Amino acid sequence: MRPKAVVIFSGGLDSSTLLYYARTSHDVHALTFDYGSKHNAREQAAASLIARRANVSHTIVPLPFVNELFKSDLLLRGGKIPEGHYEDVSMRRTVVPFRNGIMLAIAVGFAESIDAGVVMFAGHAGDHAIYPDCRPEFLQAIAQCARVGTYRGVVVEDPFITMKKSDIVELGNKLAVPLSLTYSCYRGEEDHCGRCGTCHERKEAFQLAGVPDPTRYES
Amino acid sequence: MRPKAVVIFSGGLDSSTLLYYARTSHDVHALTFDYGSKHNAREQAAASLIARRANVSHTIVPLPFVNELFKSDLLLRGGKIPEGHYEDVSMRRTVVPFRNGIMLAIAVGFAESIDAGVVMFAGHAGDHAIYPDCRPEFLQAIAQCARVGTYRGVVVEDPFITMKKSDIVELGNKLAVPLSLTYSCYRGEEDHCGRCGTCHERKEAFQLAGVPDPTRYES
Repeated sequence: MRPKAVVIFSGGLDSSTLLYYARTSHDVHALTFDYGSKHNAREQAAASLIARRANVSHTIVPLPFVNELFKSDLLLRGGKIPEGHYEDVSMRRTVVPFRNGIMLAIAVGFAESIDAGVVMFAGHAGDHAIYPDCRPEFLQAIAQCARVGTYRGVVVEDPFITMKKSDIVELGNKLAVPLSLTYSCYRGEEDHCGRCGTCHERKEAFQLAGVPDPTRYES
Repeated sequence: MRPKAVVIFSGGLDSSTLLYYARTSHDVHALTFDYGSKHNAREQAAASLIARRANVSHTIVPLPFVNELFKSDLLLRGGKIPEGHYEDVSMRRTVVPFRNGIMLAIAVGFAESIDAGVVMFAGHAGDHAIYPDCRPEFLQAIAQCARVGTYRGVVVEDPFITMKKSDIVELGNKLAVPLSLTYSCYRGEEDHCGRCGTCHERKEAFQLAGVPDPTRYES
């Protein structure tokens, strides 16, 4: 029997590649979190398709309290999604406070419950500037929490933490991830808007990787 | 204006005392988590009464996924609550994996959302033996997560971490906490059963503190 791993999986480029990477060595249980963002419904459709294609078990975890209690323009209750590049200060408004901390904590508890030794998370080098809970020092601290806070000493792994998004596209292409099915846009429409921060980042990653971009952009 | 603090608050002895302790210096926002335990409904009734008495703002956060996905006899879906003392191996079956990690992570995200600088948690020395996510090394690691994983550097405080439960009863008595309204029993009936691990621990704490025990025990 192969070891079990819990993969935090949104249906985006990074975590879909992680899913395919993880299943080369582990029996994968994918967790998708619905925290009430504008793009969660569209993302989930992508996640469900990709998980079925990858033949891994998949659970959607609703977290309605985030949209009810938290402050972020990414959320249904929040303001308009800004346009422009990802690094811009306006993108800060789309950060959901401690989102990764919450998803990782739940994944660790779930891992201990199903006897999985590993939780995998697709944080990468491009995320560090905006998201405090994507940085190596945060991921080291949460890994320490999981190790000492569970009986079995659940391990948190972030195999992409030093990679650029273009490296992930390259790896995804190599692992035959159905990249055309992955979804990144913060707007949550059927097609990618092509104008928000994540769309810019996605386009650039394909260009830099030299992989044909299969995405349908509105603009 | 006084600084804001988020207090993780179950309606039990420890966190009710923490609530009264915190409100001496902070504007308190109490969070109660409903994770589908056998005693959550009864606990919440206590929590709501005590929060009103303390005149602090109070939010109940439902986490239905815990009962659906996690393994523990404490949960509605789990097996029978064992009788006997708290330190017994059988009490391990009542541990909800990484529960404190999950509650703390949510509280940290909420704190960042409402501009609160502090999250307070009532872990104490008596919890360390059974609960890995009550131990000082866990709490240090989650404090580090919160500090580096938020923009404002949310601080996690555990003011009772070196105290015994009897010390907490003594402090609660001094702070005029309505101890008779607090609820501890894992069974979740109207009165305390007097036989489960938490009931034993509660009785002993009052005895050791030399504070008259106002609790109605079935046996």
